[in-house]
Amino acid sequence: MSGVAGEAAIRPGVSFMRAETLESADAARRCLARPVDFERVGARLRALDPPFVVTCARGSSSHAGTFLRVLIAQRLGLTAAAAMPSVASIYRWPQRLRGALYVTISQSGRSPDLIACVEQARAAGALTLALVNDTASPLASACELVLDIAAGPEQSVAATKTVVASLTAVLALVDAWRPVPSTHAVLAALPERLAAAASLDWSALISALACVDRIFTVGRGPALGIVNEAALKLSEVCGIAGLAFSAAELVHGPMALVGPRFPVLALLQDDASRPHSVAFLSTLTARGAPVLAAGGRVAGAVALPILPPMRADADLLPMLVSFYLAAEAVARARGMNPDHPPSLHKITQTI
Amino acid sequence: MSGVAGEAAIRPGVSFMRAETLESADAARRCLARPVDFERVGARLRALDPPFVVTCARGSSSHAGTFLRVLIAQRLGLTAAAAMPSVASIYRWPQRLRGALYVTISQSGRSPDLIACVEQARAAGALTLALVNDTASPLASACELVLDIAAGPEQSVAATKTVVASLTAVLALVDAWRPVPSTHAVLAALPERLAAAASLDWSALISALACVDRIFTVGRGPALGIVNEAALKLSEVCGIAGLAFSAAELVHGPMALVGPRFPVLALLQDDASRPHSVAFLSTLTARGAPVLAAGGRVAGAVALPILPPMRADADLLPMLVSFYLAAEAVARARGMNPDHPPSLHKITQTI
Repeated sequence: MSGVAGEAAIRPGVSFMRAETLESADAARRCLARPVDFERVGARLRALDPPFVVTCARGSSSHAGTFLRVLIAQRLGLTAAAAMPSVASIYRWPQRLRGALYVTISQSGRSPDLIACVEQARAAGALTLALVNDTASPLASACELVLDIAAGPEQSVAATKTVVASLTAVLALVDAWRPVPSTHAVLAALPERLAAAASLDWSALISALACVDRIFTVGRGPALGIVNEAALKLSEVCGIAGLAFSAAELVHGPMALVGPRFPVLALLQDDASRPHSVAFLSTLTARGAPVLAAGGRVAGAVALPILPPMRADADLLPMLVSFYLAAEAVARARGMNPDHPPSLHKITQTI
Repeated sequence: MSGVAGEAAIRPGVSFMRAETLESADAARRCLARPVDFERVGARLRALDPPFVVTCARGSSSHAGTFLRVLIAQRLGLTAAAAMPSVASIYRWPQRLRGALYVTISQSGRSPDLIACVEQARAAGALTLALVNDTASPLASACELVLDIAAGPEQSVAATKTVVASLTAVLALVDAWRPVPSTHAVLAALPERLAAAASLDWSALISALACVDRIFTVGRGPALGIVNEAALKLSEVCGIAGLAFSAAELVHGPMALVGPRFPVLALLQDDASRPHSVAFLSTLTARGAPVLAAGGRVAGAVALPILPPMRADADLLPMLVSFYLAAEAVARARGMNPDHPPSLHKITQTI
């Protein structure tokens, strides 16, 4: 037995990935424990009234960035762009960012490309805001505003509770920037709902993914970032190539792959996209694709259970907790160690 | 024999996909035939001096949009965001776009979601510009400015020459907006270089992809849109699940899939990213991954031939022609009809 495998073997039956996913509720509670921090940033953003927003992140954190961009389009009506970090780190192309909001999301706060981006953005006159799990990191130091996602230490290579905490911080940030009547109730209920989602039975996903090597993950609107995260996790810990698409993009080409050996995992939320997604997914089951859908009743599909809906964007976070626990079990069912995905390390530094 | 298969069978040996890829040079020549159209739009954009840009497209056209966003970051230093069409088509969330440039790219100009986006953007005060192959389409009518990509009729379901023409229009647009000393020479040489690329021998790709069902396509900077397009084509016509990533993103998770049964197609251009990409790709060959690289010498990788470099962004278009011809041959080698990908139609209308 190698040293690496031995390390995991001292915790029989419970991987870090599972244990830390189960800490998501506590992580979210810590993240939301100081509402004054979010309120201060929200007031600053209302005063700035930026013409546009840039989000900057890599890996799982970039999916929290996608979630943020959609919420900003919804709540603020602002355009938000995803930064291509090499613009700053490799190419050093000067950027015009005066007055813009530049949000970086990172667990470690240590990847050189993100730090280069923030330095460039700040020098160009953007207001820089970091959502980080390590407020003593170089990234946090480089930003004018810092929000602590407060997820606590994470040992699993595959990020789980830090992603949930990042998504929680994104919700709280947008709710502080432009509060709505549901704001208080949604944020107050979130930790308990994250805990409750761990008890939902997603075992149908485990059996469906036992023997496949490719999967589509599908969602629309606020679910886009979440299905991107699901695809990444299945690639990372299960050895299943995950392809994430909006239902509309899937029709433009990737649809050709749909069939009995290519399952589809769909995450639906209770908003205007749901009837469209349900109708689209039923065309996939009609083609013989195994479809597993959370959040909507699709003819011929396996329904994955969810909590009673509360608000569409926030409802996706408990769904992700249910998914993480299932993905961890899929990895083990396939004979893989969820805590030791091949070729990966906990902190990834890129340029 | 079904009617559909019979239709293709009347052209033995030459698919529409191959024949139309070979028309790319003519398509680009037509696209560039009226430089005054691009100059007029370029002058208008210099006068507008937009604070940011939004690109809006689906499928292959969205990859031309990615190419445009990178060129805008490089040449103009402006932030460009990819629109999520459902913001307008499904959610109807009001957007603040006054003074922005809103560029829609489409072959047919008929997808309802794109038309909804343009109507919303124009009403919100953005300058709307369409890059379309059908200037009589509803999309063209809805936009204030129209550039004709002039690729001519396309019969293959898998778009080829229309994508090359869209990318050509993107180059010409940015070169008209912010000309550089190389502008004239690069655009003048492009059609001949597209023709010459058809003679390069990419047969190594055909043999490498005969028996795989998953592939990574990798690129950085201006190549990002091109490798996204390559992944989509392999999914669409070859039944190979294509996962496109920047080299930096691949390290953050998908890396776990890299191995002997998961080939990597890398497209490199002659710019500051190349040494980083070459170093990264050699770590993949060291893990036993079959790597095929165009545009850079990577230890242990198969080198795919390219033309002598001219300018990094424009050099990617001939590479795409070489790729399309190889992908068409891969489809046939796998017993598929490249003109009839499963479940797809030529004009895709989504909301």
